[in-house]
Amino acid sequence: MRGFKSLTPIAEAQRIVLNAITHVPQEALVALPESLGLYASRDIISSIDVPPFDRAAFDGYAVRSEDTLGASRTNPILLRIVGKSLPNSPYTNVLKPGEAVEIATGAPLPEGADAVVPYEEAVKRDGYLEVYRPVPRFYYVSRRGEDIAAGEVVLRRGKKIKPWDLGVLASVGVRQVYVYKITAALISTGSELVELEEASPPPGKVINSTRHVITAILKEFGVDVYYMGIVPDDEEIIYRAIKEALNRFDIVITTGGVSVGEPDYVIKAVSHLKPEVLIHGIAARPGRPNSAAVVGGKPIVMLSGFPVASIVGFEVFVKPIILKMVGAREEPLPTARAVLTRRVTTPINVRSFVRVRVYKEGGRLYAEPLAVTGSGILSTLTKGNALLIVPENREGYDEGEEVEVILLGPVD
Amino acid sequence: MRGFKSLTPIAEAQRIVLNAITHVPQEALVALPESLGLYASRDIISSIDVPPFDRAAFDGYAVRSEDTLGASRTNPILLRIVGKSLPNSPYTNVLKPGEAVEIATGAPLPEGADAVVPYEEAVKRDGYLEVYRPVPRFYYVSRRGEDIAAGEVVLRRGKKIKPWDLGVLASVGVRQVYVYKITAALISTGSELVELEEASPPPGKVINSTRHVITAILKEFGVDVYYMGIVPDDEEIIYRAIKEALNRFDIVITTGGVSVGEPDYVIKAVSHLKPEVLIHGIAARPGRPNSAAVVGGKPIVMLSGFPVASIVGFEVFVKPIILKMVGAREEPLPTARAVLTRRVTTPINVRSFVRVRVYKEGGRLYAEPLAVTGSGILSTLTKGNALLIVPENREGYDEGEEVEVILLGPVD
Repeated sequence: MRGFKSLTPIAEAQRIVLNAITHVPQEALVALPESLGLYASRDIISSIDVPPFDRAAFDGYAVRSEDTLGASRTNPILLRIVGKSLPNSPYTNVLKPGEAVEIATGAPLPEGADAVVPYEEAVKRDGYLEVYRPVPRFYYVSRRGEDIAAGEVVLRRGKKIKPWDLGVLASVGVRQVYVYKITAALISTGSELVELEEASPPPGKVINSTRHVITAILKEFGVDVYYMGIVPDDEEIIYRAIKEALNRFDIVITTGGVSVGEPDYVIKAVSHLKPEVLIHGIAARPGRPNSAAVVGGKPIVMLSGFPVASIVGFEVFVKPIILKMVGAREEPLPTARAVLTRRVTTPINVRSFVRVRVYKEGGRLYAEPLAVTGSGILSTLTKGNALLIVPENREGYDEGEEVEVILLGPVD
Repeated sequence: MRGFKSLTPIAEAQRIVLNAITHVPQEALVALPESLGLYASRDIISSIDVPPFDRAAFDGYAVRSEDTLGASRTNPILLRIVGKSLPNSPYTNVLKPGEAVEIATGAPLPEGADAVVPYEEAVKRDGYLEVYRPVPRFYYVSRRGEDIAAGEVVLRRGKKIKPWDLGVLASVGVRQVYVYKITAALISTGSELVELEEASPPPGKVINSTRHVITAILKEFGVDVYYMGIVPDDEEIIYRAIKEALNRFDIVITTGGVSVGEPDYVIKAVSHLKPEVLIHGIAARPGRPNSAAVVGGKPIVMLSGFPVASIVGFEVFVKPIILKMVGAREEPLPTARAVLTRRVTTPINVRSFVRVRVYKEGGRLYAEPLAVTGSGILSTLTKGNALLIVPENREGYDEGEEVEVILLGPVD
């Protein structure tokens, strides 16, 4: 077991924890529409060709390209028009030498035909088509399988399934998809907590708001959350709750009980589980108390009890852990470059997450740092619409400096 | 009624349609967790102060600041330590002149106290605190209501509710939230369509894949989708379906039946509804057939039947219409700058949406345009991970040119 007395830099903490994760969530076969936002657990292979047959890519006439050899403006070649091919009613005979068939975009090419002469490039006269120049094979033809070939992988394992993926999968007839069913247990620790649904909290008690933040982020991330309730500050009770959750779920997330200054009930409880890895606290501000452990290849993430700090812990630990477990890569985040309206001062050797309000003025973007005095400063969550991450090797940014921010909502 | 024979530029089409929309979706009162991803239909006001009382922002001693006047290293002021204040067990007496109370971060400041001297700035000796310099009022104090004041708006109407918003709302005791319940009817038109669940499509039939794309995008957008099934290419039947849907839902979306070259069953059906506004086709590639109408202030969006083109229609019409109806602004999209690996040629006076594959090589991002021959080219949806939008005033971009792309998934 590796323990850390001092705060671990974020990158190191992530490396240590991710390296120790071996657990893989179970897969489930779900109906296509239910796979939205989940992660494919297997490569998905098309069993059909798209298009399923050679078809016209333009309105015109299906011809045999060899028939058009030698055609010219002065010496057009005449082809007899013998029928019509529409998407709903294809021409079913074989096209013989010297014949042409009128064809609509998307209609199957008749057997024997291998090119389409667009309306604009030929003239119909007395039941015959006058062709003025030779056309190459497959001219204006969408070839069978040119879009997707049977046997081709259309979606890779680990891919997060997007709306347009559903379109492709439906088109190739995929009705069910194997996806990872990721389950998380959420345990709120803290004798001071009361649930939102209960009566207004008496003095000394606080509403368990972090539960709602973490549940919602997990849900948006495609994870099924099982809320296990509030557990008091009691090492033995916390131990039993985490142990039970560890047996049943892919990831165990606790909130609270890891603040600096508070007795470390949660850390002590997790220690009894003999973790391969235990990171106690990270060099983050806010978010210092966020901790993580790995027991038998499975992750336990101990988040701060404060909403703002818990979000940092989610980004640092929960997100990369889940992505690793399902073999996925991180989705891109919206960013913007904005000019700082005030100096931001942050401690060295710590990664700082500063909420800012980004607004547009005179065609430029500005970022106004929001005053915070602690990790519990709630209003920055609704007043801020972006996040400035100050790396460990900097002590902040100057007023007027252009910085890159992560946008969390529309620019003001 | 305004009709358009030629293709309308996208910006003009949007302006005309949005100006005619007067419909506002109904609101519903939902439990806080259910409001995630929906749009607030009223301003939400805090009924409480956060913090609910003046509290310590640091571990140390609660003092009366006036007691520390004149304190210096050579002439420290002595205060008698009379008790302790913890978050769970506050000090309940009034702090008298000459007294100090040991206090933990987050604990209520005793009555009479107005500042906190951190442990590091004073020395405890024989039950007395030695203070070496004067502290100002509210030194290391989080003031009642300084984070959120009772009566303050914590969330504005039209705001899309994010996970962290739930944290703030829970903290101020908001259990239920008024949100817009946006409902959309989806009607698939096309006699050639069969549903995915049915047997493999016979020749000439195609699976209704666009239904799945549009349903998923709407769902991710926080809209309840009512799928009304496949309607054949019959003006009267389409008319009746749209009319019924218009009475019951906030937005009516059709797919198919608006392609150029096809008979315009859907457009004709909508014309009978006497729309205030009817845009037939837009200057987009792909996505030319996408059309929109407004009837009695309510939107009807007629999307292309092809998945790729339908997504363009969603972005051009459905998204801005929904945002306007609920008073919301568009969420930011992830973007990146990448170097084009091949020239992209697009028609002038048309906005082109080019799927590209963005990959990283040698620390730089490159965008490879994906070959497309029609709006139905499906594989670009899974092979591409980004979108290059070429504006109307350009005929493309050169190879080697740096362009901004919208990221739709992780970079390769």
